Amino acid sequence: MDLKAYLKTHQERVDGALSRYLPGEETLPAQLHKAMRYSVFAGGKRVRPILMIAACEAVGGVIETVLPAACAMEMIHTYSLIHDDLPAMDDDDFRRGRPTNHKVFGEATAILAGDALLTEAFNLLSASESAENISAETRLQVLNIMARCAGSMGMVGGQVVDMEAEGHDIDLPTLQYIHTHKTGALILACLQCGALLGGGNKDQFDALSRYGETAGLAFQVADDILDVIGDQEVLGKDVGSDQARGKATYPALMGLEEAQRRAQELKDLAIEALGSFDHRAEPLRAIARYIVDRSS
Amino acid sequence: MDLKAYLKTHQERVDGALSRYLPGEETLPAQLHKAMRYSVFAGGKRVRPILMIAACEAVGGVIETVLPAACAMEMIHTYSLIHDDLPAMDDDDFRRGRPTNHKVFGEATAILAGDALLTEAFNLLSASESAENISAETRLQVLNIMARCAGSMGMVGGQVVDMEAEGHDIDLPTLQYIHTHKTGALILACLQCGALLGGGNKDQFDALSRYGETAGLAFQVADDILDVIGDQEVLGKDVGSDQARGKATYPALMGLEEAQRRAQELKDLAIEALGSFDHRAEPLRAIARYIVDRSS
Repeated sequence: MDLKAYLKTHQERVDGALSRYLPGEETLPAQLHKAMRYSVFAGGKRVRPILMIAACEAVGGVIETVLPAACAMEMIHTYSLIHDDLPAMDDDDFRRGRPTNHKVFGEATAILAGDALLTEAFNLLSASESAENISAETRLQVLNIMARCAGSMGMVGGQVVDMEAEGHDIDLPTLQYIHTHKTGALILACLQCGALLGGGNKDQFDALSRYGETAGLAFQVADDILDVIGDQEVLGKDVGSDQARGKATYPALMGLEEAQRRAQELKDLAIEALGSFDHRAEPLRAIARYIVDRSS
Repeated sequence: MDLKAYLKTHQERVDGALSRYLPGEETLPAQLHKAMRYSVFAGGKRVRPILMIAACEAVGGVIETVLPAACAMEMIHTYSLIHDDLPAMDDDDFRRGRPTNHKVFGEATAILAGDALLTEAFNLLSASESAENISAETRLQVLNIMARCAGSMGMVGGQVVDMEAEGHDIDLPTLQYIHTHKTGALILACLQCGALLGGGNKDQFDALSRYGETAGLAFQVADDILDVIGDQEVLGKDVGSDQARGKATYPALMGLEEAQRRAQELKDLAIEALGSFDHRAEPLRAIARYIVDRSS
């Protein structure tokens, strides 16, 4: 399959939906909505929404059913980036080559734009207009998965442990904790929400969860490898920036070759998890290959 | 009725429920959960949860049904206080006589504790264990009301306009916008969610909405008056602090006497809105009187 074309088509669908769902730049307070849209439309590749859509399609669902939840997930991801970049956190001036939210709108508005995006995600998920053909029970279940993956025992928890670890020597279990929480939780939730909204059964839900866990970790290991062997274009950030910051990485903890072997293994496990799926899971298989092979 | 006893009993119920719903201090990451609990248990009077419970009871509902949503609302309120106090925002070192969250846990953890509390509110609202006897449709509706009142066109929007207004001369409509959004939206939502969860009909929902709008505004006008005529104990912050900060207030814009007249009028309107309710709305009537009469 042509993964590049698939990603492009779906990015455009997601971008269009996000633009419809978010309040316009002229909606009052205008400065707040400008700040929210600035970061949502800052060149994100829409990895998470596309994974949710692909999971939904893998179990035979259609994209329309999953678009609101996919966009809600992108809003949650974007809010986390805005807050991560703040002076009190990572203090980053640039992201994907553009000034970060607080550099453009000031710190106070950036904090509030993040808060508002997180809130808007739950507004979108619970709005009566979204996902009309989905039962209220399923929508609550999806909402709950998202709230848990983003919360104190998910993404925010991972961020806290990551912060605490900076400048300290950490072991592999701690690094694993950080990744399964800080980035892995949202990716896993994407697969699970896609499965639920697409009408998948329990076995499919479990298989897609296994795919999400392994592909999510593969993504992180590959990212760490790219930070060492370098490909700024693929990575979207400076090569060596994790090292410079004293962040623990897989290559640093287990050596580059072992990290690359581990990434391949995780890719195989992800594809294996899709064993009982037909051709409709082909995009997920291609994504797993792409994630890892760019770093080998 | 004995309002003081009513408030005390309900505060204790809310405090107990909040403690059960929030992850314990030893739950990992411990520092994050400590920070969340620090601000939730910082002496809040639980005005919003109690209003939701009182609305639920006014339409014949029971407290158990409404406790999860009432606690979720208090988490949202608490997150907003933590973020409001940040150096980039109001830069407050103390709240209710205790050091603010970022003074104790640092700015990064305070930002994340706020994020996590907001997320936890939606986790609680969507969790399958909460409000079992309530239909999924109603729970989604309640969730949507909360997300809207807290978002960019509700509380966060009001906070942005408040920030923009600081140090500038503003007119009464702008002041009204700030209050109906920054504080009024959450209070209105409490009444509406209480009505829905208690099983109230459309007329009762509308009446309680009118009560919420007028009592919410009365609360704000009374707060502004207290900032001038002073009663630090009632107010929980320094007398004259709004003035010192150059914040617009009702007494500043319309004069003290006119503000007091307006507060009385709003109180009357709030009580009038409850005209068709029986004795079960007595707590709401007493609350409206209490809000205003402490400032007259």
